[in-house]
Order: sequence, then C-alpha cells, then structure tokens
Amino acid sequence: MNIPITSFPRIVIIGGGFAGIALAKKLSKQEVQVVLLDKHNYHNFQPLLYQVSTGGLEPDSIAYPIRKILKDFPNFYFRLANVEEIDAQKNMVITDIGNLKFDYLVVASGSETNYFGNSEIEKNSMAMKTIPQALNLRSLILENFEAALLTSDLNERNALMNFVIVGGGPTGVELAGALAEIKKGILPKDYPDLDTRMVQINIIQSSDCILKGMSDKASQKAEDFLENLGVNIWKNVRVTNYDGKTVTTNTDLTFETATLVWAAGVKGATIKGLDADEFITRGNRILVNEFNQVKGFKHIFAIGDIACMETEEFPNGLPMMAQPAIQQGHQLGDNMLRLIEEKPMKPFKYKDKGSMATIGRNKAVVDLPKIRFQGVFAWYVWMFVHLFFLIGFRNRMVVFVNWVYNYVRFDREARLIIRPFKKKLKAE
Amino acid sequence: MNIPITSFPRIVIIGGGFAGIALAKKLSKQEVQVVLLDKHNYHNFQPLLYQVSTGGLEPDSIAYPIRKILKDFPNFYFRLANVEEIDAQKNMVITDIGNLKFDYLVVASGSETNYFGNSEIEKNSMAMKTIPQALNLRSLILENFEAALLTSDLNERNALMNFVIVGGGPTGVELAGALAEIKKGILPKDYPDLDTRMVQINIIQSSDCILKGMSDKASQKAEDFLENLGVNIWKNVRVTNYDGKTVTTNTDLTFETATLVWAAGVKGATIKGLDADEFITRGNRILVNEFNQVKGFKHIFAIGDIACMETEEFPNGLPMMAQPAIQQGHQLGDNMLRLIEEKPMKPFKYKDKGSMATIGRNKAVVDLPKIRFQGVFAWYVWMFVHLFFLIGFRNRMVVFVNWVYNYVRFDREARLIIRPFKKKLKAE
Repeated sequence: MNIPITSFPRIVIIGGGFAGIALAKKLSKQEVQVVLLDKHNYHNFQPLLYQVSTGGLEPDSIAYPIRKILKDFPNFYFRLANVEEIDAQKNMVITDIGNLKFDYLVVASGSETNYFGNSEIEKNSMAMKTIPQALNLRSLILENFEAALLTSDLNERNALMNFVIVGGGPTGVELAGALAEIKKGILPKDYPDLDTRMVQINIIQSSDCILKGMSDKASQKAEDFLENLGVNIWKNVRVTNYDGKTVTTNTDLTFETATLVWAAGVKGATIKGLDADEFITRGNRILVNEFNQVKGFKHIFAIGDIACMETEEFPNGLPMMAQPAIQQGHQLGDNMLRLIEEKPMKPFKYKDKGSMATIGRNKAVVDLPKIRFQGVFAWYVWMFVHLFFLIGFRNRMVVFVNWVYNYVRFDREARLIIRPFKKKLKAE
Repeated sequence: MNIPITSFPRIVIIGGGFAGIALAKKLSKQEVQVVLLDKHNYHNFQPLLYQVSTGGLEPDSIAYPIRKILKDFPNFYFRLANVEEIDAQKNMVITDIGNLKFDYLVVASGSETNYFGNSEIEKNSMAMKTIPQALNLRSLILENFEAALLTSDLNERNALMNFVIVGGGPTGVELAGALAEIKKGILPKDYPDLDTRMVQINIIQSSDCILKGMSDKASQKAEDFLENLGVNIWKNVRVTNYDGKTVTTNTDLTFETATLVWAAGVKGATIKGLDADEFITRGNRILVNEFNQVKGFKHIFAIGDIACMETEEFPNGLPMMAQPAIQQGHQLGDNMLRLIEEKPMKPFKYKDKGSMATIGRNKAVVDLPKIRFQGVFAWYVWMFVHLFFLIGFRNRMVVFVNWVYNYVRFDREARLIIRPFKKKLKAE
C-alpha cells in the first residue's frame, strides 16, 4: 500500500466506526501518521439504521464520508480496504489492496451479526447491521406487501404480512415500534385493497424480559408501549430454525413468515492473526487490559465492540454499544501519545452515560445514571441525543426535517424499493 | 391480476413517469377505474438524477412513492409489474404478475438508453436513466479515486481519473458541470495524496454544438461555462466503440478511461404487441395522432417519450422531455372522459414552456418562449423551477436544505459508496 514513510510513528486503525473515528480524531492533530482502513468509505450511524429500513430516513443522512470527517488533519490517510490478516510478528496488516507495516495497531473492527452457527437462519433471515442490509430489508418489507396484494392464497398472504423479529434488544424493539407505526399510519392508505389488520409484528426474546441491560422499569414500560401498538412479545422462547417459510422454536410455537429479522445477537468481528484462543474470549471478542492492549502486546490495541475489557461492574466485558467505543477511542488517543512519549498510560474508566430506546411515536424509555423516565419527554430526549451524536450539520438538518415532517404528517416517505435486483442480499 | 371488476370503464396506464402520473391524477377523481403499472414503486424525477450520481442529493429525495401520489383517489390501483406484452386484439395486458383486461390502454412506458445497437458500449458504459443506475455511477466515480490512490501505473491512474461523457444534451452537460465542481471543490480535500489536477472531464458530441434544441446563445454560453470549468468539449466526433478501457471514435481521437457515461441518446421503450412497423416510427416511438391515439385504435393511446406526435413545429415528433409528457397526460385525461361520454376529443397543442440546463455553481442557461438569459439569475430560475416540479413537500424541503448547504459549503456530502457489490450493474 503506497503510504509515504515519515519520521512519525505509523498508527494503523482498522475500522471507521464510533471507536475508530473517535481515536483518529484524537490522534490526527498529533505528530503521528494515522492510516484508517475500512471496507466502506463512510461512517455509518448504526443506531438509526432501523429508520432506514422503515422508510423514515434516507441512508445518506445517517452515513458520512470518512474522508470528510478527517479531511483537515495532516498525516491522515484513509484506504478503502478489506483487512484479511494481521501478522503480529512482522507488524504487518495484510489487506486486499496490499500489505501495510505498522508501529502501532488498533483493531476497531466492531461486531457482526451472530447466528450462533445456524447457517439456515443466516441464509434466510435479514440482518440490519449495515446500510445495504437496511436498504434490503426496506425493499423486502415493501415487496412483501406488493406480493400480498397478488396472492389469493390466504396462508401465503398472512406469511407475507407476518414480521418476526428475533431479539428484544434496542434494535428489535425500535424496529418493531416503527413497523407498528407503519401498520397504523401508512399501510391502510397505501394498500386500501389489502386487509392490513392482518399484519402481525412479533418479537421473540429468549430471556424473560426485553431491553435487558436497561432498568426493569424501562423494560416493563417498553413492553407496555409495544403491546399497546399491537406488537406480540414472546418471552422465554428460543428460535431453533428458519427455512425461509417457517420459524421453529424450542417450544411448540411456530411462525409462518416471509420475513425473519435476526437481531438476536452480535459477536466480535475478529481478524485472522488475532483470532487465536489466547486472544479471543466470550462473544468472539479480543481480550484487552485496562489500557486496551491486546494480551501479550505493547503496541497492538483493540477498542469498541471487538474489545472485551472486563471491569468490576462488567465482569463479562463492557457492553457492545456506542458509548464505550467512543470513550475508549478518546482515551486510547491520549494513552498512545503517552506511550510514544514513554509516559505511563492511564487505565480506562467507563462512564455509563445511560441508555435509551424509542418505541414508535411519542414513546421512549431513558435510563440515565441518576434518573429514569419514560414516555413523551423521553422521546424528545432520545431525538435530541441522536441528532446531537449524528456526524455532520447537513445530516442533522436532513434528519431533523424528516422527523418533523414524519411527525406532523404521520408519514414516512422514503418507502422506495431501490435495489438492482429482488433477491435478498447478504451484503456486508 | 386481482383487480375488482366494477361498472366503471377500466383504464390501464403503463408507466408512472411524468406522463402516466399526470394522466392518473386527472382521471382518478372521475368515474373510471385506473390501474397504473410500473416496474418501480416510485416516480423518479429524472432531471435531477445527475445530482444523485455526483453526491449532491439523496436518491430518496428525488423519488416519490407512486402509491402515495394517488392514495386519496378512489378506484385507483397500482401494481408493481413488468409488462411483457400487449394483446391489442383481446384488449389484454400480459405482465409478470398476470394478465389484465382493459377497456382503454395508455402506454406511457417512456424511453430507455439508446446504444444504437453497440452491445460492447452497452456492456461497458454507464447509463443514468434510473436511480439504481445513478447510484452505480456515484459508486463507480468514488471507487475510481480510491483505486487511483493505489496504482503506481501512471496510465492506469489517468484512466481512472478520466471521465468521458458521450452526448452533449442536458444530461451530459449537467453531469459534466457537476463533475467539474467536484474536481475543484471536493477532490483536493478528499484526496490530498492524489494529484487531482490530472482529472479530465470530456464531453463528446457528434454534432457541431451542445444543447441542441436550445438557442444558439444558450448553446454557446453553455460551452463557455463548461470550458471555464475545464471541461473538454469534442464536437463533430462520434464514438465508435468502448471495450472498457479505450474509447475509439470516427476520428483518430481515442480516450483511455475507466468511466464512459453514455448520454448519447434515448429511444422509445416499446412493448411487444405494439412494436410492429405499422406502429413504430423514428426513435423507436409509437406513432400517435393529435389525440394521442395509436394508429388504428380508438381505445389505445400513447403519451410521453414513447409517443411520437408529429406537429408542424416538430415534424419528427415532439421532444422527449418532461413538458410534452405532462401536457399530454393532462389533455388525454380530459379527452378520455370526452371519449367515454361520446363527446368529440380536442386535438393536443404543445405549449413550449422553454427549456433550461445548469452548468455547475451559479451558472445556467434558460430559453423561455419570450426571453432567453444565462448566468446567475438563470441558475436561480433553474433551481426554483426544479424545486417546483419536484413531487412532495418533504422532497422539496430536503432538496432545498441540501442545495443551500452545498452552496454555502461548496460541498456534496452524499458521496457514499453504497451498493452490495463492486462490479458495474446494468440495473434498470
């Protein structure tokens, strides 16, 4: 890879997610050379992907060109690349566009959908971790209704209008809420000649509550909100298989559906060379110390979802969310400069800023460290926070315009089937 | 196709472009049943596709769900379908989702890219007639620069940064202007380690002027604007072939390029059953009389690009543009009601409202029936007119926000490579 050799130490960052971008911003003003590698040329604001899938937002307004985020920084290099392997002995990253030597390496490769080894489910279900995936889900949902109009087979029609979401985490809950709003506000107008009362929205949750990790109150309220919206929540049920038609579970419960959204879990997106048992711990994540150093290395780090940092509060590793990723990125930026100047690094302390989820119009649940609340005000807080964390003034403006419009008009206009072909894609 | 049979006459419209939508709007409040068929579920505002290709606008803000345009109309039915054949004898439309009887048929299938029979060019070039195509072009342009960074082969790098646009009509001119703005305002910031002065933008025009059909003054001004932006215009040159690497012409001029955009012509998108020589005239269009009736039929009509209506002013048929399509749609709506009430129809009279094209920032050329002007004011007029003709308040808002932002910040932020895979697609 033709990156100029300078007198500055070269820091290679793998991944332009929350963690990688936060770190790059910290470093890029310093006397280091930063090379950021990502397989996309944009940073993708994952918390709003579900709104792309449900026609509420354009994909372009929750994505941001990585080159632009860091355009003003000297000694910064971006390369669109798939990292194939890390040669920790040779201090080299091996990619599909060539090899790259590093002085310091930071793995911020994030997480990917975890199918727990079930290839049938992987083949037949929809995921929602990337923008192409979100667009494919949007197209599939719309195509289902077009198809439902055509069939005279009642079972087929019901299957086309039956949506099964596996996983009661924020992704599943927010997607279910949005689908319920569409069922209420849009489908009857768009499909007057279809009995959209038959639309079913199901959340299947393996444990006994949704939004695990949030407070019991938030979890309970979210359930109430969803049930008022007509969403069926199936708790303590584990999906065992999906052949593209029938969802089977560990109970005698089964679902006939054309759409299974798999939001049941994520795992670390490990990279060959750092995937040996000595590095990898639960959730396929890389075990790191309090400085985000990978076990056995002084100059190789992992941050964000891929990094498993065990703390007293989180013995199984920090949650795989935006906040730990951003905070680790910032702190590692400082620590690497300390390391380069041979000063002692500071251990990472996670500040839990709370978590939140929205469940359709006017409804959200918010857990802050000191206060918890649910309902309309929570919904405004949710919107403000997400607007605030979006990158880019234009994105904020466009998202704001869309939200105001959607709210006032009870509408979501980006319901377009835009893709070159109809079959489901497993695009990453 | 399960469309209910009513006492109303059934009018089947093929195509949800400018013509088809204008007609449907006219008819859908009347005592007729309207069935609109389109292979996309959205109406696509083609005049702004080039801004999608160049990252200035989101695709979702120039497209609009067809169901929503007509949701308040009774007796209106939309079906997502590919029309395969028209059986004029049986009064039946044959589609990939079944057959449909009609009392009246209106073909508004529009136009498609005309490669003049050159399959090599069709295979290797990019078109810009649909939203997937526009997105593929956007991705290709960005991928070219990422690739240009990697190669050490100077010829290859130049080919990746060399853009050849065939056709000096509005599409080619506006795309060239946008690319020139990107070269000036964005590439140096995004690719500091690439000598973007090497970027070449070429327009190849077979005749002796660009923007044929507009006034000589407009054509000349457009040329000046483009040349000031550094665009090379090659007149009286005809492209003979493109193998994916080298563009050959009828002169000794050749171009080494990774990107050939084919905007050299369109032809009517004819449909089997109405494609016999007795119907088809120059440009692959269906010959119609002054009532838009297809030769030999009282109840089969063609409007918009597909229809060739010969007038004194336009002996070769009205221009293939939005205005004739919209006007024909409106008038045919009235005429069909007259026909149903057995009143005499009124012959169509085309009101030329003028034409315009923009050439980058602050520059446009406008020909109105009574007045012609070029420059900054023309540019504001161009923007106002395009905002006005866009369908949907949200689309207008979002496009306006983007335009203001892009203008103030000299930027285009939707420069994202968003597609499931890298190879060029011939998506329609």
